[in-house]
Formats: sequence, C-alpha cells, structure tokens
Amino acid sequence: MEDGFYMRRCVELAKKAIGCTSPNPMVGCVIVKDGDIVGEGFHPKAGQPHAEVFALRDAGNLAENATAYVSLEPCNHYGRTPPCTEALINAKVKQVIVGMVDPNPIVASKGMERLKASGIDVVVGVEEKLCQKLNEAYIHRMNTGKPFVTLRYSLSLNGRLLSHLGKGAEEPGGYYSKMLQEYDAIVVSGEFLSRTSTLPISLEAGANQPFQIIIAKNMSSLDLPSTIINSAAQVIVMADKSISVEPKSEKVETVLLEQITLTSVLDYCGNRGLCSLVIDIREDKGSVTELLEGGLEEGLVQKVMIELCPVWIGSSEASLPSFGVEQRKLKDLQSNVTNESTLVEGYLS
Amino acid sequence: MEDGFYMRRCVELAKKAIGCTSPNPMVGCVIVKDGDIVGEGFHPKAGQPHAEVFALRDAGNLAENATAYVSLEPCNHYGRTPPCTEALINAKVKQVIVGMVDPNPIVASKGMERLKASGIDVVVGVEEKLCQKLNEAYIHRMNTGKPFVTLRYSLSLNGRLLSHLGKGAEEPGGYYSKMLQEYDAIVVSGEFLSRTSTLPISLEAGANQPFQIIIAKNMSSLDLPSTIINSAAQVIVMADKSISVEPKSEKVETVLLEQITLTSVLDYCGNRGLCSLVIDIREDKGSVTELLEGGLEEGLVQKVMIELCPVWIGSSEASLPSFGVEQRKLKDLQSNVTNESTLVEGYLS
Repeated sequence: MEDGFYMRRCVELAKKAIGCTSPNPMVGCVIVKDGDIVGEGFHPKAGQPHAEVFALRDAGNLAENATAYVSLEPCNHYGRTPPCTEALINAKVKQVIVGMVDPNPIVASKGMERLKASGIDVVVGVEEKLCQKLNEAYIHRMNTGKPFVTLRYSLSLNGRLLSHLGKGAEEPGGYYSKMLQEYDAIVVSGEFLSRTSTLPISLEAGANQPFQIIIAKNMSSLDLPSTIINSAAQVIVMADKSISVEPKSEKVETVLLEQITLTSVLDYCGNRGLCSLVIDIREDKGSVTELLEGGLEEGLVQKVMIELCPVWIGSSEASLPSFGVEQRKLKDLQSNVTNESTLVEGYLS
Repeated sequence: MEDGFYMRRCVELAKKAIGCTSPNPMVGCVIVKDGDIVGEGFHPKAGQPHAEVFALRDAGNLAENATAYVSLEPCNHYGRTPPCTEALINAKVKQVIVGMVDPNPIVASKGMERLKASGIDVVVGVEEKLCQKLNEAYIHRMNTGKPFVTLRYSLSLNGRLLSHLGKGAEEPGGYYSKMLQEYDAIVVSGEFLSRTSTLPISLEAGANQPFQIIIAKNMSSLDLPSTIINSAAQVIVMADKSISVEPKSEKVETVLLEQITLTSVLDYCGNRGLCSLVIDIREDKGSVTELLEGGLEEGLVQKVMIELCPVWIGSSEASLPSFGVEQRKLKDLQSNVTNESTLVEGYLS
C-alpha cells in the first residue's frame, strides 16, 4: 500500500472524535509493519492522551522498527500529556510519516526535529490537503488567533432567503445537525427566537452540544423556550444593553458587550475558548445580518455554506444583502444533494 | 459482463449524436456474442439508418445467435428507413435486450411483439432510467405533443438574478455551450439583445446550432448584431406587433403571434419541429420573464437548471419572481461544480 492509504486511515480514525477535541485538533495515527496495520489510535478529547500514544499501545512490541503514520506532527512539549515524540522514540519506530506540520507555535516543526535528531526517518506532507481540511478550524485559530467562522443560510430556487431549513436538515443525520456537531457554537439572532420561540437546534442527548449564542442587538427582553430548563442546551445571550431574559436558568448566560460587532463577538468567543462558530442567517433584517455588515469584508468569515431548497417563494419575501463583499469570490466549491436540498460550500478568498 | 454494462455502452454510443437526431431519439446498439462485443452502432441523424442497422453491419455474420442490446425499442414500421425488427430477424439474433419501450405511439411495444413472434427472446427495462434520461425531451414530446422546456438562470451567492453567466460557461467545453448542443432552440428576451448587442450564443462552426429565439413583446424595433450576416446562427424573432428588425438577413425570421404566451410560443415551436428549448432568464423584467408568469404553473416547464455563481452582488440588483409556482418543488436534484460555478438541476414535479 502507498503512504496515502495509511494517511487516509489516520484521518478516518481522527474523525471518530468529531466535535470532541476542541480546542485541540483531531488526530489519527496508525502503526504499520511489513505492510500490515499493527496499531491504531486517535485523540479522543482534550486532556486525554494523543493519537500516537493509543496507536503505540495498540501495537505493543510490534512498534519496534515499524512506520508510524500520523495526520498531524507529533508534539514535543509537556502539556496535559507528555510529548508524543518521546513515546515514538521509546517505542523504537524507524520512520514517522506526517500529514502536516502543526501550526501551533509551540510545536511547529520542533516535533519533527526531535524525531530526526533521534535517528528516525521523517517524511512530511502526505495527503496534506486532506489533513488540513480535517483541522481547518484549528489551523485558522493558530494562524490568526480568531475563531473559524462559517456563514450558513438557505435560499429558495428564486434566490430568496428562507427562514426555515430544508426537509430533514435538523433531524438526527441531517446535514445541519451533523454540521453543528463539528462546531463549538452556533450564532443566531434574537429576532429568530422572538419569532419561533425555539432554540436553533435541539440535539439528541449524548451528542456534542454546541453553545447556542443569541445576538440581541438593541433588545430589552428576550423570551427563551421554557423547555430550556430540562434541555442539554447551553445558551449565551449577547446584548448591547441591559436585557431581561426569561426563564432564568443556569444554562443561560447573559454577556453585555459595549458594541455588538463581528469583531467583539469573535473576541469574546475566542477568549471563551470557542474555536469555531456557525453564523446562521434566518432573517434578512435582524441582529445577525447587522453583525455581518462589514464583517465579511474584514475577512472575519472563512467559509460559506448555502442550502438551496427546492421551493419557489413569493417575490415579496426576504432578500439577502451583499454584506459589502462584491469583490470577494468563493473558492474550492463543493456541492452535494442531501434529502431535497442542494448544499454548496466554499471558502472566502 | 452483466446486461447493464452493455446497455450503458449503448447509451454511450447514442450520445455520440447529441444534438443531431432531433426529432428522432438518440439510440445506441451493441451486438454481443460469447461475452464479446462484436458490433456497435448508433443513430447519427434523422433520415439516416438506425443504431441496430449500423451495429448489425459491424457484426456481419457474427450477429447470428448473438444478443443485441439496444437503448430504445426497435421500430417496426416503414419510416424513412425500413423497420429495425426485420433487420434483427434477418440477422438471426437469438435475443434482444431493450432499455425502454418506445413511447412513440406508432412503435409502442409493437417492435417487441414482432420480435417475440419471430421466436426471439426479448428482455425490456435494463438501465431503463438511464435510457429515459438520454431521451427525456423525445419522451416528453411523445407523451404530451409539446416541446421539452428547460428553464435556466444564474444566481449570485446572495440570491440575485445575474445578467451574465459564470466564467467559461459560454466557451467551447463550458456547460452552457455543451447544454445548448442538446437543445433545438434557446429562447431569450428582446431586452437581452437591446442591452448586450450580442446573440445569446455563438457556437463554433460545425457544432449543432440551436435556433436562437428572441421574444420581443411590445417592441417596435430590434437591432441584431451585424455579425449575424456571416455567422451560422439561425434566429427567429417572435413579436406581438409589427416590428422592424435590422440587419435584414435570411438567417433571421420574424414571426407574428397574436399574443405572446408560453403556450403560443411552444405551439409555434412544436409545429416547427423544435422538440426541446432552453428558456434563458437574463433579466428580472423582460419579455421572457413575462412569458413565464403563469407558464410554470401550467406545467409547461419540465426542467430547471440554476447556476450559482461564486460572487456577491449589491442588494439593489435584480430579483427573480416566483412565477406563481410556490407549491411546486424540484425533484431528482443533481449538482456539480464546473469552473467557478455550481450547477443545480432538477425536474418540476
């Protein structure tokens, strides 16, 4: 088998922890000896051992003289766990094949240098794009210090902004509930709650629960659904003036920001350890739309996901503004059909 | 190999004549003996022999006791060519495997009956959906007597109707020029010509040239580009009142309709032998948009192709009306990324 095969297996393993590793990256590792996979592992959760440790444990003595494939450069520092480079050296692997260099400045190539200094052969950049896509949010945060932001909305066939999602999107297995598993938080307008009296998402128990951030711009009161008291939801209301939120619950925090802008919201989220956000546009005029005016132009949004729903709606319905980004294109487009909708995603250049 | 393999090859062969067979369907045929393809053929053009004849000629004596695969039921009537059933019987094939029954009332199952009556084993419905998709326009016309209509338009990321296509779409190999090869005519607004002073498409010499139909509703004059005189384009201007069209050219016909409605336009095209049309929306207010008001609701449009271009445009730009079809959904969606755009197509239920 070629190296790419084993690296794709690393990525597959890493994805078993989707939504669980933040603020850490997802990492997978396989140990290969004479063409056979003799050990596998992935990083399950921040604070728990890294992928290499699990894979080496799984391989046992077979790790000696084996090749280790790992989707992200092994760490060389003492964090909550000892450095993986030492584990690989102690296990006497002869070669380490790395998907991508860790952009974390406290790792950045030092892991590879340590391995090389111990006489281990190191190769880097196998299935690099795939490994980068796996941890796009982590990489973005390491490079910029800001959370990774995806903008999401639904359009009708005639291009109107829809206030609802396509059929099945919010159900278990639907694209929306799967997508939210991968993010630390979802951001919606206070106007959305006022209109629908529901939280944007109600995930199954046991699933990763992203924070639900409600932007209440110039609102003096906000009614949350009473079911919140018994739900697993964690809600943050961000307001720019004193606001009364009902019902009172320890699951609901209120944060007062002097000004509500995309920058101030992202700063707060970043400090709070929320590394990736979905900003969900459900109404053409509302706190979230205002938040975005200018924000796209400033490069604060990385990714866009558009759901094209197979319905025609009246021409008086909501229209989406252009957010002042006429000059910026979407790149690396991907599309696929899910249930009745077409999903298009791309990256802001 | 299983039957599906050979039938898919038939469809592949049939597609060599894309845009050339109207008003006939595209058909491909392969002759298989002991698992080997010993003859291949397709129907190249109306008036020329059918696929079976070419495939049998190609197989020669090897056709005896062979299996013939054909994507559409063989004809059993004398048209411009003798019936294919007789050719198959004379060649002494032992089995005929048919993709789909011919919806043409003068064929409809009679071809299969004739083959069975001669002792040939007949199987029908292999890769049926694929064979139906190949000739969706032909099937529609046979079932309804009306041309098959595809609606096409381009949207920006924020859902505005674009007056231009995505990058590369009109170039050779681009989706738009490839798409138009498959249709007998393209329909645009007179307002499009007034605005752009170009015809919607200028195809390479040798390519199938669809008629270019200009809808000039309530217009008293229309200037065509002067290059039309030396081009391969065939233009029909449909007007509802006396109209002066310049330059005069034998390539330009003017048709006066009492009222311009989708029904009257389709009736004219059907009588004229144009079996499939693309209606291209380039402006939110114009002769084509007016044509469509109500027309979608009446079920006169079968297919929709939307190009989602990766640009954001200002909120004051054009919006697409809903054409009064709020209740009708798009089905059998497909999407793919081409150049910089995402193409979404589906069928109106």
